[in-house]
Amino acid sequence: MGETTSERVVGQKNVVLLGAGRVATHLAPALVKAGYRLVQVWSRTESSAYEIAAPLGVSHSHDLDAVPTNADIYIVCVSDSALPEIAKRIVMRVGSAPLFLHTAGSIGIELWQRCGASNYGILYPLQTFSKERSVNVNEVAFFVEASNEKVMSEIERLAHNLSRKVFRADSERRARLHISAVFACNFANAMYDVAHRLLSEENIPFEVLLPLIDETAAKLHTLTPHDAQTGPAVRGDVAVMQSHMATLACNEDLYAMYALISNYINRNK
Amino acid sequence: MGETTSERVVGQKNVVLLGAGRVATHLAPALVKAGYRLVQVWSRTESSAYEIAAPLGVSHSHDLDAVPTNADIYIVCVSDSALPEIAKRIVMRVGSAPLFLHTAGSIGIELWQRCGASNYGILYPLQTFSKERSVNVNEVAFFVEASNEKVMSEIERLAHNLSRKVFRADSERRARLHISAVFACNFANAMYDVAHRLLSEENIPFEVLLPLIDETAAKLHTLTPHDAQTGPAVRGDVAVMQSHMATLACNEDLYAMYALISNYINRNK
Repeated sequence: MGETTSERVVGQKNVVLLGAGRVATHLAPALVKAGYRLVQVWSRTESSAYEIAAPLGVSHSHDLDAVPTNADIYIVCVSDSALPEIAKRIVMRVGSAPLFLHTAGSIGIELWQRCGASNYGILYPLQTFSKERSVNVNEVAFFVEASNEKVMSEIERLAHNLSRKVFRADSERRARLHISAVFACNFANAMYDVAHRLLSEENIPFEVLLPLIDETAAKLHTLTPHDAQTGPAVRGDVAVMQSHMATLACNEDLYAMYALISNYINRNK
Repeated sequence: MGETTSERVVGQKNVVLLGAGRVATHLAPALVKAGYRLVQVWSRTESSAYEIAAPLGVSHSHDLDAVPTNADIYIVCVSDSALPEIAKRIVMRVGSAPLFLHTAGSIGIELWQRCGASNYGILYPLQTFSKERSVNVNEVAFFVEASNEKVMSEIERLAHNLSRKVFRADSERRARLHISAVFACNFANAMYDVAHRLLSEENIPFEVLLPLIDETAAKLHTLTPHDAQTGPAVRGDVAVMQSHMATLACNEDLYAMYALISNYINRNK
């Protein structure tokens, strides 16, 4: 790494990562690749911290009281429900001066203020991470928010070192993004899961749907979802919908989903 | 085209295509490419028939009484609601002898018997077609059904000339496939549409979601939808779900979808 590159400069920043879930699994190597000095991965579950830290040659811990106090940046990517407590304890341990970040879409920046931090912000990656799959972090959109403009510069520098897509978003926009992501990712996946169930019952391999699923996603690169919509609901094909609902009548959940989503499509066509 | 190839043989089959919607738009060039002699494209709307027929140098018509009576195969790909009438009229016009096919997922094979056809079947392509986008028909799964084994051989030959993925499926399995496709394609797209709406209201470009949407689909090549599921519902993160539902409370449709699909995910985790 050349002495004069920006990587050399950011390489001097020491980072502690708290959490060992899906986001941490992908963020840790991305931080190292971007030239940051990852000094420790902490997780309540020691083996999880080890799994992330060991391949990177980084120390790990499951004891918050063993987390280094002299790092420049503390990034907390634990579950939303654990975040308030971990945020409070880490500020108590290391003091208010370092930069504190969390990666949660639905938790506001004021959390850090309540914990007594002085320099803080949010680094929200809009992606679905699986431990088993590699993701090109450079293509992931990061939404950032900061306690003040000076801190914003630092967070934006960090985000730009990770990805070429960095946007500012306050809590309201981030919450909106998160809800949108729940629909576009989690709920779309639930629709795939229903399809998987229905095919399993007939011993039809799920693989037959993959070209359809791929094309449904690929379409959105050239069409809006509204223009891409196909199927009986948008055609108002009542006979087909009734026949489908008769088939689903024995499953209350699927029947209700079919009716509700078909109505949504038909009303918005 | 060599005299001895199978294309030469199938090239001798004359096909009339009835319908000019999304399926016909993609099937017409695929049939020509596979070596069939497409002799006419018929549609109630003359301009639609012309749009498909002209680029292929094929005649078109909007008059059912002008459809050639001497073709070997008549493929009807009109909407489900128009299919019974068109099927009846085409058999009446051309007689019971040729091979009659339709491409509808949810209409049974007995339709053709009721119309008086002797040789008939179904050629159901499991894909979402848009007029604006090209689709690799060779990768599309075709599900076929036939009035008897001799006809099945002919339909399977046709299907294999179009695609490398051909499966037999009776009406029950095909209906199941169609419902699965409605969830995996039409309803997944409805989820994208909700996301698009939510982002539009905040002037956030939909493009920020594309890597997430692509990855959500791509995951299914290596994980089941059940194992791929992420988000607040599968985590049982009640605080996040309540906050999202509070945001959606002003929109009855979105609120109901959020609650229903989250419950489905959480119950099946």
